[in-house]
Amino acid sequence: MKRKAQLMQGNEACVEGAIAAGMRFFAGYPITPSTEIAEISAEKLPCVGGKFIQMEDEIASMAAIIGASLTGLKTMTATSGPGFSLKQENLGYASISEVPCVVVNVQRGGPSTGLPTSPAQGEIMQARWGTHGDHPVIALTPSSVKETFELTIRAFNLAEKYRMPVILLMDEVIGHMRERVELPDISELEIISRKRPSVSKDAYKPYKADEDLIPPMANFGEGYRYHVTGLVHDETGFPSNSSAVADKLVRRLMDKIETHKDDIIQWEEQNTEDADIVIVSIGGVSRAADTAMKMLRAKGLKVGTFRPITVWPFPEKRLQELAEKVKTFVVAEMNLGQMVLEVERIIKDKAEIKRVNKVNGEAVYPEEITAVIEEVL
Amino acid sequence: MKRKAQLMQGNEACVEGAIAAGMRFFAGYPITPSTEIAEISAEKLPCVGGKFIQMEDEIASMAAIIGASLTGLKTMTATSGPGFSLKQENLGYASISEVPCVVVNVQRGGPSTGLPTSPAQGEIMQARWGTHGDHPVIALTPSSVKETFELTIRAFNLAEKYRMPVILLMDEVIGHMRERVELPDISELEIISRKRPSVSKDAYKPYKADEDLIPPMANFGEGYRYHVTGLVHDETGFPSNSSAVADKLVRRLMDKIETHKDDIIQWEEQNTEDADIVIVSIGGVSRAADTAMKMLRAKGLKVGTFRPITVWPFPEKRLQELAEKVKTFVVAEMNLGQMVLEVERIIKDKAEIKRVNKVNGEAVYPEEITAVIEEVL
Amino acid sequence: MKRKAQLMQGNEACVEGAIAAGMRFFAGYPITPSTEIAEISAEKLPCVGGKFIQMEDEIASMAAIIGASLTGLKTMTATSGPGFSLKQENLGYASISEVPCVVVNVQRGGPSTGLPTSPAQGEIMQARWGTHGDHPVIALTPSSVKETFELTIRAFNLAEKYRMPVILLMDEVIGHMRERVELPDISELEIISRKRPSVSKDAYKPYKADEDLIPPMANFGEGYRYHVTGLVHDETGFPSNSSAVADKLVRRLMDKIETHKDDIIQWEEQNTEDADIVIVSIGGVSRAADTAMKMLRAKGLKVGTFRPITVWPFPEKRLQELAEKVKTFVVAEMNLGQMVLEVERIIKDKAEIKRVNKVNGEAVYPEEITAVIEEVL
Amino acid sequence: MKRKAQLMQGNEACVEGAIAAGMRFFAGYPITPSTEIAEISAEKLPCVGGKFIQMEDEIASMAAIIGASLTGLKTMTATSGPGFSLKQENLGYASISEVPCVVVNVQRGGPSTGLPTSPAQGEIMQARWGTHGDHPVIALTPSSVKETFELTIRAFNLAEKYRMPVILLMDEVIGHMRERVELPDISELEIISRKRPSVSKDAYKPYKADEDLIPPMANFGEGYRYHVTGLVHDETGFPSNSSAVADKLVRRLMDKIETHKDDIIQWEEQNTEDADIVIVSIGGVSRAADTAMKMLRAKGLKVGTFRPITVWPFPEKRLQELAEKVKTFVVAEMNLGQMVLEVERIIKDKAEIKRVNKVNGEAVYPEEITAVIEEVL
Repeated sequence: MKRKAQLMQGNEACVEGAIAAGMRFFAGYPITPSTEIAEISAEKLPCVGGKFIQMEDEIASMAAIIGASLTGLKTMTATSGPGFSLKQENLGYASISEVPCVVVNVQRGGPSTGLPTSPAQGEIMQARWGTHGDHPVIALTPSSVKETFELTIRAFNLAEKYRMPVILLMDEVIGHMRERVELPDISELEIISRKRPSVSKDAYKPYKADEDLIPPMANFGEGYRYHVTGLVHDETGFPSNSSAVADKLVRRLMDKIETHKDDIIQWEEQNTEDADIVIVSIGGVSRAADTAMKMLRAKGLKVGTFRPITVWPFPEKRLQELAEKVKTFVVAEMNLGQMVLEVERIIKDKAEIKRVNKVNGEAVYPEEITAVIEEVL
Repeated sequence: MKRKAQLMQGNEACVEGAIAAGMRFFAGYPITPSTEIAEISAEKLPCVGGKFIQMEDEIASMAAIIGASLTGLKTMTATSGPGFSLKQENLGYASISEVPCVVVNVQRGGPSTGLPTSPAQGEIMQARWGTHGDHPVIALTPSSVKETFELTIRAFNLAEKYRMPVILLMDEVIGHMRERVELPDISELEIISRKRPSVSKDAYKPYKADEDLIPPMANFGEGYRYHVTGLVHDETGFPSNSSAVADKLVRRLMDKIETHKDDIIQWEEQNTEDADIVIVSIGGVSRAADTAMKMLRAKGLKVGTFRPITVWPFPEKRLQELAEKVKTFVVAEMNLGQMVLEVERIIKDKAEIKRVNKVNGEAVYPEEITAVIEEVL
Repeated sequence: MKRKAQLMQGNEACVEGAIAAGMRFFAGYPITPSTEIAEISAEKLPCVGGKFIQMEDEIASMAAIIGASLTGLKTMTATSGPGFSLKQENLGYASISEVPCVVVNVQRGGPSTGLPTSPAQGEIMQARWGTHGDHPVIALTPSSVKETFELTIRAFNLAEKYRMPVILLMDEVIGHMRERVELPDISELEIISRKRPSVSKDAYKPYKADEDLIPPMANFGEGYRYHVTGLVHDETGFPSNSSAVADKLVRRLMDKIETHKDDIIQWEEQNTEDADIVIVSIGGVSRAADTAMKMLRAKGLKVGTFRPITVWPFPEKRLQELAEKVKTFVVAEMNLGQMVLEVERIIKDKAEIKRVNKVNGEAVYPEEITAVIEEVL
Repeated sequence: MKRKAQLMQGNEACVEGAIAAGMRFFAGYPITPSTEIAEISAEKLPCVGGKFIQMEDEIASMAAIIGASLTGLKTMTATSGPGFSLKQENLGYASISEVPCVVVNVQRGGPSTGLPTSPAQGEIMQARWGTHGDHPVIALTPSSVKETFELTIRAFNLAEKYRMPVILLMDEVIGHMRERVELPDISELEIISRKRPSVSKDAYKPYKADEDLIPPMANFGEGYRYHVTGLVHDETGFPSNSSAVADKLVRRLMDKIETHKDDIIQWEEQNTEDADIVIVSIGGVSRAADTAMKMLRAKGLKVGTFRPITVWPFPEKRLQELAEKVKTFVVAEMNLGQMVLEVERIIKDKAEIKRVNKVNGEAVYPEEITAVIEEVL
């Protein structure tokens, strides 16, 4: 069935994408500016046989989607800054116990309760480092309503494929923006579900990985009995204090992502072929970056854009390639400098790096980017 | 009164330091390997007229020390990985509401419940980025029992001076190690307490900063009435949606630390004058780094050590100076590479950077460091 | 619209009655044997524009229906023994703050978690005395599926009329029994809603009772501003320590029911005109009592039945009238003797009182009643 | 060691009695007018090697004393009305799982938060019926500071002897009153501890009662392994749905008290030998009753007093004996009529019963009792 074009909000597109990806369980606690994701899920999930539950708090919401995922459902929660902080402990639990789920953070101004209804990108680093201990992270950053639909599906696909929580790192600009979108027919979408066990119930080891470093996953209630814990565990799922087991587990969790970076990492670039200057940005800021580029190109300046779609793992290799030719990178963010730290780490030895930062609760304007670039010249 | 030399555990030294610094309130929830800090506080605080309270969970513990600090007490909590994750939201609250307090994290193996009794340094980046939104962080990393005593006092001093939460980032090696220490007489210690208001109760504005960017702090119960919130607020403490107010507040919070870096940042270096190779490490790993250096110096190699005492803000300027002459930096950590990212960011354009990483629940051994260095040569 | 006859469960009839009475908010936590009431409410409420919410626990469920009632909705929760105990504190809050709501207890075997799926009547006295302090209680006890429908409506009507929580005291026999019922057309039902203020918003005093001792009730959100507290309060709703205020409030709460007993109390009796022996019972046991009466009447014995429909306030006056002529009362209950205590208290000076008690998780059988009666003769 | 006379508060005497009885664990949550019991326990318990813990709420406090008792400690909690309601569910758990513990309720004005610092006796019936399902209750009601000391010891003795929770039902008058008391030497006190198993660890059945209906109790940590549940269970402690098991268990719990009434029930009477009128009262009201009696005796009226010390089980037999000769009983209470219901139930057929009730937050005055009596004459 061909869907017709419609005016849609980013948060709404997130739910549409989630349901298209197969989400059948949503647990959440309301928090601006993510609340529409819960509200719309509450309306739509019952229509597809799914369950919505409002939990008593942010922690319980995260716990609920982990538990429901273990029974075989595709699950999601959505929150904003304060809730994202509260969910961090259970995010680590999902990481080490390798439970697929999607966590949406529609970023608003922080720290603390901060500016509840204003946009920000203050959790770029928290998305990577928010929970304790070494752990892998996949975080996707949509920059349009349509891409929100697409990346929500991709978040579920990556969560299922790699057995891990995946973060959809939106910002209030994208979450609350309305755009005309034409959603693809569901039959055209690639939908990935978790790899299932091929061995007998007795032979099944829930954390015995295949060559791709990903263990097949049996769902609770299907007759496979196994132990799930946040403690370091061996292939059977039972806790172990062995240093060999610990080393193997933690490294495998990281390598599971490291070895599949080519499959996971996506980015978009425009006019980079001849660019002297490249604007680096994600999410809502990319829209200003595009306009800034066009304004400067119109003046004859060789400006391009680089937009990580997968902010974690960061498209490091491609940035290094670009840095071979590009002289200056301008990293524009709605924070006091987070993604720029990663850019510095990757290409400090090769290019000049400039910053555009904003934390007053307003979006970045194109003129704020062009002003910095014009200073460079 | 001169104290005699004694055999003391790191966690014990932390409590001794805290009480010497003036801690009179401790709230916590037991978690290995930090539990002795709570236990010893429970014993010692009543003897100095202080209060110990075991709270129902990690979140409440963090909330309690914020509340108690607002009444004028010097307060502390102690935890390990999972608890540190749970405390993150309230850490941000303490940041934006500028409430002095000390949060100890005795790091153990993660992620999640991980390896409860084994050492790790998995929260170096979380200490910087664990709570949402832009916020300043001071984190101190002791590498001996005696230094634990000293840095706990320093943590209180910095918390009080800069009106903010300060993190004492220990690891299990230091927390559980016993060493002979001779504590200084209390009269010899520099003890700093929060700057008090000099204006009348009616004229007092709780978030009106002096030139040093730090607002004087009145304590609840003294007759000054004011509002405390996690929302963006103006000088009166009441919430504001003004973009000018937001911009001013968030930037001041960051600049409060940025402009006093020289006062805050400490590090220790050995044999760096002629060094070709410098081992960079903190906490428990520094002890192996020292031994490794000595082993290699004994072989005639020009090896030095660089140990950030303040891991956040990182001693960036000094590292850059060292990188002018040093050819190779070896960053040794009990994680899969965290502090090394900051080292790369700072000096990637100037020196070769090597890693020693360990996540199997064991301490780093000197031989593991020397092995990497010998590869380099 | 005439409804057709249908096979219906007691718990289902409860929800049908509630919605017919105007329930538009249900908050609950699942507990056998009341769970169907929550489940069916979850399905049906959205269809009439109502809200269902599963809360995190029994206490929160009770709090939620109080809060929602204050906004003007007719609200209900349902539970069984353990949950009924947990709700007691908030039941007292609803009493003193005079908030209409309906609390269903489908009784199962106790004490504690007891026998989750077996019938009992162990909360007859708890319904009267479960919360602390003197307080009025209305509790209704249906003995058929149809009557469950009717009494649920009546529970809402009494709650609204008298501004207080009303208990629907079911038992597992009635809750899980299925009977053919023909529900009346909604237009035939008497539906009562709370008395509204007739004074201006400024003149409104939320606890200033009319001559009927019941204060008109404004709903939050309509512009009337008032204070609600569980503390003793004066007519304005604000707390008071005055002994005169306390005396007046607590006595009015009790008298509000005492003076309207004739409107509130209902009972059913059969064959009492000539009876020497009367079986007293409520709920599921009344069905055995009916059969026992018929068995004994068939043998020529003058046996009748007396069934309090309103167990609290107890139909004391009518029982006293009956005791003028009846020689023996047999009180049959699924507990170790609760209602019989009230019967003794009322008519001990006038008649012989016998007991039939059962606490093994089975219903009372007619033969168990006839056996006691045949002993008497 | 002979203790000297001292001025002591009722709440303080409670703690002194508890520690003398062997209390070594107290868990509570502060609530007026019981808070001194927690405060003094916090001070005194560490001195005798005991533990005090403030829990996060009333429910947790009740759970904690049950858990600690299972490990072999004598445990207590203290609360007032709202907390007593919250503890009811776990009180039932202690009943069915037969865990000795002491629960103090220092009654204040209710319902709900009511009158926090004013006396009342609003929980006489709740003490009997507050938790769901049939269950036994022992509740003791001191009427002086010295008796508070004695009855707290007795509460522990009965709890230990009969393996059940025992309620010390104080009121604010007694809790906050200060009197000169001379405490007995501890060596003079009878201290009873739970009956221990005499069989081997393998043969031990935790709920296999001796002829006295009381099962010996092994403490967790001693090597006896057994299951504790709030569900109906057989002698092994494991849940059972058998109706025979349920019947046996619930009846034994009740009979455990019923068959030892003579050991449990205590009362005090004065001048009842020749009395025409007897004032019935407990706790703080008994002091006014004494004065009223003396005032009336001084006028030549034959007035006596009857004071249940054990309010549950009620001294029913003795009241019946008195009713053979006494013409009028005047039941004086700080509530709207609770104990009087039990008096009516017991002797309605034998004597006239009058009421004195007060709910305004003040104590009952002797003149209020004499006024009612003078009406009678």
